[in-house]
Amino acid sequence: MSSQVQVKQLNSGDAGFKETLLSSLSLPTADDAAIDAAVVNILSAVKERGDSAILEFTKQFDRLNIANVTELEIPHRDLEKSYQELSSEQKNALDIAAKRVRAYHERQKIEAGCHSWEYEEADGTKLGQKVTPLDRVGIYVPGGKAAYPSSVLMNAIPAKVAGVAEVIMVVPTPDGARNPLVLAAAYLAGVDRVFTIGGAQAIGALAYGTKTIPSVDKIVGPGNAYVAAAKRRVFGTVGIDMIAGPSEILVLCDGSTNPDWVAMDLFSQAEHDEQAQSILLCPDVAFIEQVQASINRLLPEMHRAKVITTSLANRALLIQVKDMAEACDIANAIAAEHLEICALDPRKWAEKIRHAGAIFMGNYTSESLGDYCAGPNHVLPTARTARFSSPLGVYDFIKRSSMIEVSEAGAQTLGQVASTLARGEGLQAHARAAEMRLKK
Amino acid sequence: MSSQVQVKQLNSGDAGFKETLLSSLSLPTADDAAIDAAVVNILSAVKERGDSAILEFTKQFDRLNIANVTELEIPHRDLEKSYQELSSEQKNALDIAAKRVRAYHERQKIEAGCHSWEYEEADGTKLGQKVTPLDRVGIYVPGGKAAYPSSVLMNAIPAKVAGVAEVIMVVPTPDGARNPLVLAAAYLAGVDRVFTIGGAQAIGALAYGTKTIPSVDKIVGPGNAYVAAAKRRVFGTVGIDMIAGPSEILVLCDGSTNPDWVAMDLFSQAEHDEQAQSILLCPDVAFIEQVQASINRLLPEMHRAKVITTSLANRALLIQVKDMAEACDIANAIAAEHLEICALDPRKWAEKIRHAGAIFMGNYTSESLGDYCAGPNHVLPTARTARFSSPLGVYDFIKRSSMIEVSEAGAQTLGQVASTLARGEGLQAHARAAEMRLKK
Repeated sequence: MSSQVQVKQLNSGDAGFKETLLSSLSLPTADDAAIDAAVVNILSAVKERGDSAILEFTKQFDRLNIANVTELEIPHRDLEKSYQELSSEQKNALDIAAKRVRAYHERQKIEAGCHSWEYEEADGTKLGQKVTPLDRVGIYVPGGKAAYPSSVLMNAIPAKVAGVAEVIMVVPTPDGARNPLVLAAAYLAGVDRVFTIGGAQAIGALAYGTKTIPSVDKIVGPGNAYVAAAKRRVFGTVGIDMIAGPSEILVLCDGSTNPDWVAMDLFSQAEHDEQAQSILLCPDVAFIEQVQASINRLLPEMHRAKVITTSLANRALLIQVKDMAEACDIANAIAAEHLEICALDPRKWAEKIRHAGAIFMGNYTSESLGDYCAGPNHVLPTARTARFSSPLGVYDFIKRSSMIEVSEAGAQTLGQVASTLARGEGLQAHARAAEMRLKK
Repeated sequence: MSSQVQVKQLNSGDAGFKETLLSSLSLPTADDAAIDAAVVNILSAVKERGDSAILEFTKQFDRLNIANVTELEIPHRDLEKSYQELSSEQKNALDIAAKRVRAYHERQKIEAGCHSWEYEEADGTKLGQKVTPLDRVGIYVPGGKAAYPSSVLMNAIPAKVAGVAEVIMVVPTPDGARNPLVLAAAYLAGVDRVFTIGGAQAIGALAYGTKTIPSVDKIVGPGNAYVAAAKRRVFGTVGIDMIAGPSEILVLCDGSTNPDWVAMDLFSQAEHDEQAQSILLCPDVAFIEQVQASINRLLPEMHRAKVITTSLANRALLIQVKDMAEACDIANAIAAEHLEICALDPRKWAEKIRHAGAIFMGNYTSESLGDYCAGPNHVLPTARTARFSSPLGVYDFIKRSSMIEVSEAGAQTLGQVASTLARGEGLQAHARAAEMRLKK
């Protein structure tokens, strides 16, 4: 492998540019019927046989041969021990990250309106909404190579800030291998219980509950294709977060940035997996060439050069645009998960952005700072879903109940209106219920 | 048909009460493979052939034989004409309802945190979230018997209050029959464009766009099994609201209410459809008998007595509880769409409620007032999903982008933390991107 890659270049003035761009963004949808069929079987086994099905699948998939599901729970003291045994550098880094993520989400809880409210009308009628946290939430944490302690913080902390009474984490430990950083993060984030189960069987346990594993109200967190299929299947029985696609970064650059920094930011998405997508929009063709040169110069030092090369070769784009204003228009069409604005006046351009999961402004705001410790959540909408969805947040762990208290006087005026409209819809009992409250 | 129905009675002290209750709540899931297969075909035809597929399906299902999809758009002046031709009573009722729904959602926009926010840290790092409305939203409105103008108001007004630039309504008109109340409601609610298409083909048109019908970012509104299956299928390409189940009412009553009012409130859910569910929780067995007597006395005057009888016979419950506190516990387990608290001190009990779509407090707050004109949304979580989801609201038509601007000083401290954590996760490019921003 040569550790060289020529990234595909486009020019926004090319004929058919918009179509080429949009087709470059989409991936073939992975509607794997075999995976879905396997998941249906696993879920129904867990629903019907509970703990015994969990033991079977955990033996089959994770090669853990145990007699009782209670053995799959990691005691809280073991989580604390994992934390205490970290190096002081790692402990300090995790502490700072957890503290900053908590501070941001506490601010979000206030600013993003996660509180009850009510107002009273002239006739004494009161209207509002009551906000309550979810009772119990499940967090799926992948095992093996993609076991990210940062994801534990990003999923668990907003739930605890929201006031969720019980956060249950599941994490597979194939062959019994535990990741101490993940357990330490669970300790720091305030996770209440941890079970070493994974796959569709873990999703089933959280959705339906077993004798040992309590059912939850919502399941969040990333997973493989089986986990994603299982989450889709249990949606409705429990809430779920978005089904995440491959990670994406879009860099808007006016050419004022060190091209090495831009290249490394593109790498930091590309190293996630072969399907990750890195795109640069820049009005300066010379700068684009500098970034391409940086890519080839920096690639050989990368531990994950192979993944980065495949990702960049198959999915990356370096796009020359007319100007930064056009770059913003294109960014809105892409609606990227991560949008970096590397420019002298990043806020000028950020104002024009309507669709992005997170906006990183200025040359010092590398996306990786946001991934770990800036404070905002790193669970972000992918695959253009930032057009209609938001970063994971405190608001995902609360729900609202409308509060309606109509006064006797209010029932006289509203009753007439409701009666007329209900009869217009042919719903006589609705009309009669309102009419019965009218004074004769 | 005798117009008499004996509603099933339970006592919370009965052995196995909780299991009986929970099993009474659930319906067999309608996973109709034939419907789903038909929907897959319709969606892929619309995706591939656009307008020509829309013409075909509209001819096939709605018997409209037209040459061009542009003929399926109802001009704005026709919407206004439908409104102007209403009786003054209907016009007035619709005006008041629209005004009240708008006022409530404008308040919600403020109180529920639908605004951008940002804060600055000591080192100049700025963190926050930017709130933007969705660009374009589609509203599905069923045709025929379940065509409810109130639903048009409840779906379109929050979108317009959120600032959605373009609201596209689709409503099938089988054999060309238009519902003037629905069109008048669209006019009042500020719907931008209306197309007379329906079924899975309408969902496909909104999700993928055709030459004539623009694609949207989110689709909301109720529909039949084909529409629901299509919404599930296009989820991810666009956002969707919840898939609604049959309507439910839970009445908590201390016995201080007119039993006729309670009976009529139970009817007003039951008349929606045979699968709707009406439940009464009351500590007073004599009152429960009075409600049963009211049911039998009032049933003969109901236009929809047949539907009400079937619904009450199959799905309703009159439950004797120990006291109102226990009633609240049971209400939390049920997590009903509509919860009426008919009691002398309704707020005392409302405080104990954690899970409900909407809480109607006091004897004058019939659920039907909330359905039409109190102001809060009548699109509410069903089937126990109030444990984790909320009424439709302004917050469903906005989304958030995290805003991160790390100062040069901030990049020095955060860079160290990100570097340590990224290396702990084996993501070297993430680490290097942070390290590059460190001063030597």
